[in-house]
Amino acid sequence: MSLPIETWAEQVRAGETRAISRAITAIENHTPEAEPLLKTLFPQTGAAYLTGITGAPGTGKSTLVDRLAAHYRKQEDRVGVIAVDPTSPYTGGAILGDRIRMQSHAGDAGIFIRSMATRGFLGGLARATAEVALLLDAAGKRQILIETVGVGQDEIEIVRLADCVVVVLVPGLGDDIQNMKAGLMEIGDIFVLNKSDREGADRLEEQLHAMLSMATPKVDRSSVSDENRWHPPVVRTVATENKGIEKLAEAIARFRTHFESSGERAKKHTEHWRNRLVELIESRILERVLNAAGGEEALNQMAADVAERLKDPFSAVNEILAKSGLQI
Amino acid sequence: MSLPIETWAEQVRAGETRAISRAITAIENHTPEAEPLLKTLFPQTGAAYLTGITGAPGTGKSTLVDRLAAHYRKQEDRVGVIAVDPTSPYTGGAILGDRIRMQSHAGDAGIFIRSMATRGFLGGLARATAEVALLLDAAGKRQILIETVGVGQDEIEIVRLADCVVVVLVPGLGDDIQNMKAGLMEIGDIFVLNKSDREGADRLEEQLHAMLSMATPKVDRSSVSDENRWHPPVVRTVATENKGIEKLAEAIARFRTHFESSGERAKKHTEHWRNRLVELIESRILERVLNAAGGEEALNQMAADVAERLKDPFSAVNEILAKSGLQI
Repeated sequence: MSLPIETWAEQVRAGETRAISRAITAIENHTPEAEPLLKTLFPQTGAAYLTGITGAPGTGKSTLVDRLAAHYRKQEDRVGVIAVDPTSPYTGGAILGDRIRMQSHAGDAGIFIRSMATRGFLGGLARATAEVALLLDAAGKRQILIETVGVGQDEIEIVRLADCVVVVLVPGLGDDIQNMKAGLMEIGDIFVLNKSDREGADRLEEQLHAMLSMATPKVDRSSVSDENRWHPPVVRTVATENKGIEKLAEAIARFRTHFESSGERAKKHTEHWRNRLVELIESRILERVLNAAGGEEALNQMAADVAERLKDPFSAVNEILAKSGLQI
Repeated sequence: MSLPIETWAEQVRAGETRAISRAITAIENHTPEAEPLLKTLFPQTGAAYLTGITGAPGTGKSTLVDRLAAHYRKQEDRVGVIAVDPTSPYTGGAILGDRIRMQSHAGDAGIFIRSMATRGFLGGLARATAEVALLLDAAGKRQILIETVGVGQDEIEIVRLADCVVVVLVPGLGDDIQNMKAGLMEIGDIFVLNKSDREGADRLEEQLHAMLSMATPKVDRSSVSDENRWHPPVVRTVATENKGIEKLAEAIARFRTHFESSGERAKKHTEHWRNRLVELIESRILERVLNAAGGEEALNQMAADVAERLKDPFSAVNEILAKSGLQI
């Protein structure tokens, strides 16, 4: 089982499915091999384009992602799909989900599909998703699609990973659902009106354009001058009938050109790595401090004392830091 | 403006609305006064009972919370409400939401209602929610209701704060929405079938009972012997007509007795404080390390280098730690 890291990395670079799957499992479980593997692969990353597809449950995101992936495969782009969706119909679990998804791309080594459970990752779901994207990047996938339902802070963090954010809406979902729009409006680079053959599509598109024209630009893009500002387009699709997929791919490509030429990509990537570095520092030091302060057992005792109000949490932390001998 | 911490704490203990509001703002913005204030108030906490109310958008959670709060007020329990709901119809922002909510309890000093935005908190939404709950606890609120939409990891973390988790379902939402159930099933201590006068309520209740009888018990309760195991009840309500609210309050009280006598509460609270201590340690050390390593500017330069693949993230972290002089 103890494959040398360099061999393993070589297999990932070659796109070998088993090696990639094992690496993802290592990332998810935060095993000791994950870090040296990612470190070895890191210089081969940076060429992938990450598109986040997000929207309320019932908007048909999964089908849209599937069709978009098929479109990229036709262009001979290698594709990675990461499905992070707690409301996915594949509630039989992530593995079952992968099997169902895989069927339509069976035998195609140019596509790698992975569903990720939405809980229980050591170090957080956003970290795991970011590292899996990095791995697929190293494995030569040029188009990486990340599917996620667009609510919750963790989800927003995942969406921030993406170079391009596609927000999916459908006509006919209840008003309560459409209220989700407010949060999604701010993060969308492209809006998809899926199931656009349904009643109410025209009205929703009108509303959408009205809201977009009023919308304040993203905070981190405020430095861009007005004529260079990206105006999020609305693309109509019927994913189940493969309608509008090409137009969506065109919009994504157009945004890519804009994003890369305006310098926003470099800025966004720097911000992403800043946050990742902070996370890495935190987990590294935490391990050291906890070990020095007596490990999990001492921590649990301290927590029990706080729960019983024998100690306040701030004094407890000071005690732990003092014990760690790190002079902080 | 620079009120002495002890005076401020005294005002919070006395339940003064303005002092509580100011404290919440300090918590949300992570200002320097927040920590000493919470430290001062900490010994007066621990008496509140936290109930989390969660469910998909459109299930009528807000109304249910409002009615339940009114019920507790009739029992002369002081009540705190924390609404953490990105899909809340009050999209005009958290403050507008508070105003709308407040109207039905206007002039009642025994209830404090606060909506929290779902993004942009320094240190995370779960931390802010936990600290606001602690504050309301110190302010003498004995029933604290936390309303949240039940998706996303951050949300799950918030739900974990609660002593009792109420999951709200309604008949007639699309199948896609009901798929959210899968994740919610695991965390519910009590299930509410709201809008139970609607068509499909009987069928949904049957499905719910069937799913509950199959459900595996919560992982952290596996140590509880079978006869002492809590069997989540299903309570039918029509919140808009104030129907079933008393029964819901009874179920919550029954769970409280079970939860406290079985020792699960102490266990859950210890686990909660363990996680909070870790968070506090992380933020404390991080500040120190970053300052020692050259501050935000040095960090951003490092991040830019990583984004350009001049350096891998793991080597960058080692460099920062080496510069911090903490010998980690």
